[in-house]
Amino acid sequence: MTEFEVTPWEVKGEVDYNRLISIFGVKKIDEKVLDLMRKVFGEIPFYVRRGIFYSHRDLDVVLQDYLNGLPFYLYTGRGPSGPMHLGHIIPIMFTKYIQEKVDTILLLQVTSDEKYMYHETMTKEQIKSYTIDNIRDILALGFDVEKTYVIDDIRHINYLYQLAISVARRITYSTVRATFGFTGDTNIGMIFYMSIQATPAFLGYFIDNKFKHCLIPAAIDQDPFWRLTRDIANKLGFPKPSQIHGKFLPSLKASGKMSTSQPETALYLSDDKKAVRRKILDAFTGGQATAKLQRELGGNPDICTVYAYYKYIFEEDDKKLMERYEKCKSGTILCGECKQELISRVCAFLQKHQENKEAITESDVEAYMLDNKLKFEELIKAYEMLR
Amino acid sequence: MTEFEVTPWEVKGEVDYNRLISIFGVKKIDEKVLDLMRKVFGEIPFYVRRGIFYSHRDLDVVLQDYLNGLPFYLYTGRGPSGPMHLGHIIPIMFTKYIQEKVDTILLLQVTSDEKYMYHETMTKEQIKSYTIDNIRDILALGFDVEKTYVIDDIRHINYLYQLAISVARRITYSTVRATFGFTGDTNIGMIFYMSIQATPAFLGYFIDNKFKHCLIPAAIDQDPFWRLTRDIANKLGFPKPSQIHGKFLPSLKASGKMSTSQPETALYLSDDKKAVRRKILDAFTGGQATAKLQRELGGNPDICTVYAYYKYIFEEDDKKLMERYEKCKSGTILCGECKQELISRVCAFLQKHQENKEAITESDVEAYMLDNKLKFEELIKAYEMLR
Repeated sequence: MTEFEVTPWEVKGEVDYNRLISIFGVKKIDEKVLDLMRKVFGEIPFYVRRGIFYSHRDLDVVLQDYLNGLPFYLYTGRGPSGPMHLGHIIPIMFTKYIQEKVDTILLLQVTSDEKYMYHETMTKEQIKSYTIDNIRDILALGFDVEKTYVIDDIRHINYLYQLAISVARRITYSTVRATFGFTGDTNIGMIFYMSIQATPAFLGYFIDNKFKHCLIPAAIDQDPFWRLTRDIANKLGFPKPSQIHGKFLPSLKASGKMSTSQPETALYLSDDKKAVRRKILDAFTGGQATAKLQRELGGNPDICTVYAYYKYIFEEDDKKLMERYEKCKSGTILCGECKQELISRVCAFLQKHQENKEAITESDVEAYMLDNKLKFEELIKAYEMLR
Repeated sequence: MTEFEVTPWEVKGEVDYNRLISIFGVKKIDEKVLDLMRKVFGEIPFYVRRGIFYSHRDLDVVLQDYLNGLPFYLYTGRGPSGPMHLGHIIPIMFTKYIQEKVDTILLLQVTSDEKYMYHETMTKEQIKSYTIDNIRDILALGFDVEKTYVIDDIRHINYLYQLAISVARRITYSTVRATFGFTGDTNIGMIFYMSIQATPAFLGYFIDNKFKHCLIPAAIDQDPFWRLTRDIANKLGFPKPSQIHGKFLPSLKASGKMSTSQPETALYLSDDKKAVRRKILDAFTGGQATAKLQRELGGNPDICTVYAYYKYIFEEDDKKLMERYEKCKSGTILCGECKQELISRVCAFLQKHQENKEAITESDVEAYMLDNKLKFEELIKAYEMLR
């Protein structure tokens, strides 16, 4: 049994995603949910087919209600403590997919306050700079400006605080200690913070009261936030937010999650061709020690980080992915070939991404910002009706 | 030894103010401070002469620096969880006195968020209603609109939050647990809250960087907040806020602080003549059981709540107060006379107060509100320079 630990702020060891399901008390996506997905999306979404989004809370309820004419809105987020890498965009891409399929609104929370309070040596200037940069990276993926609301916690605190204090007074220290493993050394900002992350799970109902549910696609490490948010939702008069949970894109350096503290383990959205080439050529694979051995014994795609990139992002065609898998196993493809092909796909993707990002102006960004989209006075009046 | 407990949220038992000085680690106002006060104010202020404001932190430094041409600003506050009584206005009146004497700015924080989070059954509507009502009561005391900034935590959270998270990440749970006696059952809003109450101790430097100090006149139960704020002030690049601490106006019903949960123990600013009369006639005094005994043995003004009201508010003339004291001791004045005289003074005061309050329009109030006085964009830019 490999030891591992998953919190919203740190992932340690080799994650056993099946065990995580029982640790977190969530549900695996089963045939019933797949069937509902086929009905709602007209297909099993790419990330679900590949097992990348694999567990949930009440997703079946959300999809069934949607089929009965009761719409949901979407909420996902990003913690702006560094440059974004390919792993970060997977939940965001999946959220975009759902948004387009069901034509709904999306709240995109950038947790500037959390990252400032968690990284006790980072400055406000650094956090602000990552906040702006990360928002531009996210918007470069292409979101409907009419239906997408970007929330910067610090900038938009006046849109969040009244909801946050309604959450906060219903959550005790014992609860957050048990949920997040906080200790006496934890700062009081981090202790309060879950109240802020909870707010977009309710804010959507103030934007349009037609919504029956809030669905949160996010990496599974965020689940503890939603568990607590669900516990107090009904007390506040809201539905419990539902989730669909994703796995982490593996590190390029053997097992583990990609990590900003180890830049060589991740492909950043800002990496140039040279960096991409260097990192992929250095990546851990499931290949044998020599080409000769590889041809004789075959490789192991199940542990290969290069293969993982194809599976998570760079091979959309299931048949071609399976062919690559079989060719690896049978030794008819060598690691060098797989790496070269991946380098060219990643470079093409990043070049396009960087061009998209470059084209985004400040006023493009502003058009997505919550304070430019919501009527503050009306919102505050509605908040005051909350108990 | 009488047992007592003083926290910012509850005062239990008979407070021993001298012991509180050593429990809180503050200093008694001594001859040196009195001498500085004479120089700064041209007199020993009423509340200090009467021993009502009696201890401090660094008040000597603030006054000495002021005499050397280095100004300070003032900060005090009010928790809007109910109607205000006479006890509540004592620190505010003292603050007004100082403001007028040294011609400085005052930040007046109304802690709507704190009271909402502390009183877990109160609604947002109730808190908002008390917030508006309490602000009108405070402004009815007469403040220079040019130099007085009213902060409503909920309304002005976007002016406070960036400062608050700078405080929050430097304060651990262990620290607030030890300071405030928090437990696992404490809600996470209350745990975070001291960060919000700390902010006006720094905000003044952003309004005018000429200030060398912040001085906080407040009841001594608030001291734990300032102790923590002082601990982290230098880390944030600010001077430690200084304090002058007041005692509580005693309850009308024998010993203890006046209490909103026991309306008969306090004279409210909104009380009519009938209520004032009833409460004062029912008040606990130091008198004897009969008029005859009183004339023979004399009364005890030291334990008399009626006498306390003269001392705290309703007899400005030291000589006349002393006469009343002696007359009581010698039995030449009876409780009934003292009460009748107090009733007429309180009624006159409250009638004037209620007329003043009535005359305050919504736009009068707005003129004091922080967001109508500060340039938000400039403030935020300055905040972003904070570590």
